Amino acid sequence: MSMLLLPPGLDEAAFATALDAMRAVAGVDFVFGPDHPNLVDYNDRYPIDDLGRFAPAAAVAPDGVDQVRAIVRIANAYRIPLWTFSTGRNFAYGGAAPRTRGSVVLDLHRMNRILAVDEEAGTCLVEPGVTYFQLYAHLQELGGKLWPSPPELGWASVIGNALEHGVGYTPMGDNFGFSCGMEVVLPDGDLLRTGMGAMAGSNSWQLSKYGFGPVMDGLFSQSNFGIVTKLGMWLMPAPPANRTFMITFPRESDLAQIIEIMRPLKLNQIIQNAGMVTPWTYEANLAAPRSAWWDGPGPIPEHAMQGIIDKLDIGFWNLYATQYGLPELMDAQLAIIKNAFLQIEGARFFFAEDRPDLPGVKLRELVGRGEPNLMTLDVFNWLPNAGHIDFSPVSPSTGKDATELYELIKAEVKTYGFDYIGAFIIGWRELHNILLIFYDKTDADQQARAREMFSRLVQKAATMGYGEYRTHLAFMDEVAKTFDFNDNAMLRLSERIKDALDPNGVLSAGKSGIWPRHLRQESM
Amino acid sequence: MSMLLLPPGLDEAAFATALDAMRAVAGVDFVFGPDHPNLVDYNDRYPIDDLGRFAPAAAVAPDGVDQVRAIVRIANAYRIPLWTFSTGRNFAYGGAAPRTRGSVVLDLHRMNRILAVDEEAGTCLVEPGVTYFQLYAHLQELGGKLWPSPPELGWASVIGNALEHGVGYTPMGDNFGFSCGMEVVLPDGDLLRTGMGAMAGSNSWQLSKYGFGPVMDGLFSQSNFGIVTKLGMWLMPAPPANRTFMITFPRESDLAQIIEIMRPLKLNQIIQNAGMVTPWTYEANLAAPRSAWWDGPGPIPEHAMQGIIDKLDIGFWNLYATQYGLPELMDAQLAIIKNAFLQIEGARFFFAEDRPDLPGVKLRELVGRGEPNLMTLDVFNWLPNAGHIDFSPVSPSTGKDATELYELIKAEVKTYGFDYIGAFIIGWRELHNILLIFYDKTDADQQARAREMFSRLVQKAATMGYGEYRTHLAFMDEVAKTFDFNDNAMLRLSERIKDALDPNGVLSAGKSGIWPRHLRQESM
Repeated sequence: MSMLLLPPGLDEAAFATALDAMRAVAGVDFVFGPDHPNLVDYNDRYPIDDLGRFAPAAAVAPDGVDQVRAIVRIANAYRIPLWTFSTGRNFAYGGAAPRTRGSVVLDLHRMNRILAVDEEAGTCLVEPGVTYFQLYAHLQELGGKLWPSPPELGWASVIGNALEHGVGYTPMGDNFGFSCGMEVVLPDGDLLRTGMGAMAGSNSWQLSKYGFGPVMDGLFSQSNFGIVTKLGMWLMPAPPANRTFMITFPRESDLAQIIEIMRPLKLNQIIQNAGMVTPWTYEANLAAPRSAWWDGPGPIPEHAMQGIIDKLDIGFWNLYATQYGLPELMDAQLAIIKNAFLQIEGARFFFAEDRPDLPGVKLRELVGRGEPNLMTLDVFNWLPNAGHIDFSPVSPSTGKDATELYELIKAEVKTYGFDYIGAFIIGWRELHNILLIFYDKTDADQQARAREMFSRLVQKAATMGYGEYRTHLAFMDEVAKTFDFNDNAMLRLSERIKDALDPNGVLSAGKSGIWPRHLRQESM
Repeated sequence: MSMLLLPPGLDEAAFATALDAMRAVAGVDFVFGPDHPNLVDYNDRYPIDDLGRFAPAAAVAPDGVDQVRAIVRIANAYRIPLWTFSTGRNFAYGGAAPRTRGSVVLDLHRMNRILAVDEEAGTCLVEPGVTYFQLYAHLQELGGKLWPSPPELGWASVIGNALEHGVGYTPMGDNFGFSCGMEVVLPDGDLLRTGMGAMAGSNSWQLSKYGFGPVMDGLFSQSNFGIVTKLGMWLMPAPPANRTFMITFPRESDLAQIIEIMRPLKLNQIIQNAGMVTPWTYEANLAAPRSAWWDGPGPIPEHAMQGIIDKLDIGFWNLYATQYGLPELMDAQLAIIKNAFLQIEGARFFFAEDRPDLPGVKLRELVGRGEPNLMTLDVFNWLPNAGHIDFSPVSPSTGKDATELYELIKAEVKTYGFDYIGAFIIGWRELHNILLIFYDKTDADQQARAREMFSRLVQKAATMGYGEYRTHLAFMDEVAKTFDFNDNAMLRLSERIKDALDPNGVLSAGKSGIWPRHLRQESM
């Protein structure tokens, strides 16, 4: 028996032949076999489980859609499971690591061309390896007329973020919603363009989300039905002015009222971007390592809280948003916003420029104007060897729902000995509740506690009607199963489409709980 | 041989048995067999072809999702092609008539319940038979806090309009884009809920467009992969104020400049809704029968034009839009808009209240504030026995593209002896160009000329890069074929999904050019 990790069902000789075929396509420098030192880069950076569970057997980094198609055909010939990613920076959800042990990672980071920017129409067309840093720099070079809408970490792939339903913090932060036109390699190597791009000579591929017939784009988000090799995005015209503000609220019990005030302001677009509400721990996490605040075991105790809040000069809860437009219009909107929130006793209003030393404010100002940055990396100083996963349920934007979820999560993190570090982010109509879970990734006990807590949160939230909008590799099956309407009708439909488009099961087996037929039992 | 029209491949006895089974499900009063007088109601009201080409064999009007599922199962047992519609008011595109002769029309108008309105979240959940009139009346009864975004004719089904990628004229007029959460009966009778509704107990079905895994909603628009039995919609909070305006431009050659000025105003949301630019003929068409303007043969001659323009006191081109918000903010935006457009020599600005007698202004004011109406029915007085189809290409929002399409269409309508009656409607990033073609539906020569012209327009527009976003039954195959990237990859993908989900081909065969396998040759 070989000691090498192999794709399921493949022997060493056949795998070697397949990798040679991939080398002939992508170049010898861009195929990393089982014994290549670079292969470890494709592991989960923040393992919450045995590292081997999500270990790749090899990786290949093609450059160009023709190479991608050729590799997909090789994968079909050998029935090798591929695992696609754009740049793999999505560390809280597994990074570049494959759901299926022994997959060959299909690394698209070399495909990093900005293929078009139309400044007059407010659109761009990019490849998977294009990061928000790169797109922003390019747009700035062109004169800064257009803004992207990056998530917290600017190294994210524009395509990867959109396909995972990630959000940005300008008013156009629904990055999948504001995508327009895909090029997709199907599991058999066929090539598709969606929307108006389905017409070969179309001049409107990045302009109209609808072509003729069904809208296929959503099929290729959070799924394993195809490899998106190009994506159009709508960009925001730089507004005449923008201004980020922060409002602090003193009491834990203020949460419900904050959300109740925020909802109509967002619905009426008085708050224009994704307003964010953070607890004091989020600010402390961003500002300094945990040891600067508390060096005892277990979660930071309540008696230490007020000292931290006072030192940072923040609230128990802190709300951030950014206004955009003509200065006089922003003033009118800000007057409404202030008037609404300052009804809460003890609430305090600050412009970003009033708080030059608080990193949370600087971060919201940067992402609020579409400027990619890496400030959020500081959160990983929280613990030594910090690993991190996110629990990400969606709820109605009501005080009642925010409070229910907060109480649930607070109780669980206390039980399992973690700090509560979270955030509420308001979208078009819904509230995203994010719990950041930090653990020592070299400590099996902490990993096990985090895993158990996560599973309990998924189950308990589901019984209360809250579902996760994305999750780490280790929990994809569990989360998928909570989407249980009519005997998991959605997952069953996904499986039928999977079988029709990918009979050999070569693309990203297990992604979002969707398994090819021959591996379907394993997920049970 | 029976003289009755039968579904393809079915004999009279089997069909009678199948209809009896449908009667047992939907009630005897709601199944209209081949000899029932009501069956003619399911024909195309504005035939452009031999009426028999799109004739139904029967119709069934179930009430409720369980009845729909039962009928779909009967259709599978007998391999009967069903043709689904919501209320069938989409007359310019075929109305209720089926693409496949001998289909049984599945009429969902009895399912007309408004299942939920959430005034605080700005959402509703409706069944297919709910019209914009009904939804608007219900919202008004609740206090008018929310607006729908109806198309020109308020009798449209909310679901039908959204699924066909129809537009409304408030800022939330992208009705498919602002839908949120579907319930779908699949071709085998299985039942699906999309988005967060895929979780049985979800409290966020109408709040978040994204559940976990792929976004399936687009699959069920303009397609035949399922029957949408419930749809969530996001509604617009009624703004503090709204104001419709009109700007007239004197010269035909002003078109390019109008569009060039409009694009950045729309991109920056200074123009907030779908701005519309109409030629003088559109206004004349809405205001009076053709005979009031010209009673000679052929298109209205150019020498008659100026008299009509003067009489209506309009421009060669006329732009409409509506502003929303606080009055002082609208004033600021309107100043920008006026300043921009009044650079065009001879341009004149009017508020709606300045033009009480012009029907075009009244119509734009009503739809601009989400108020359904039937004013547009007046356009059918244009000719005796008027039939009507729309040619609907999408283009970039540039003066060059608008002019190219206008010149193409103008030349063709002149060649074929029709009047040019059109409109340009600006969306998020694209321009919809609508040509309204009126013909005497009892005159085979006019029908034939309209058909030939339409086919030429489809082909010529495609060679220039313009594709249609929807079309009449008679042209679905032709339009689908113009979406020709990689050997019609989009249509080939649709066919693979069709075969996987609907192996018996029971749902809306031929819709958008998508045929079940056993009928696929017929479409060639």
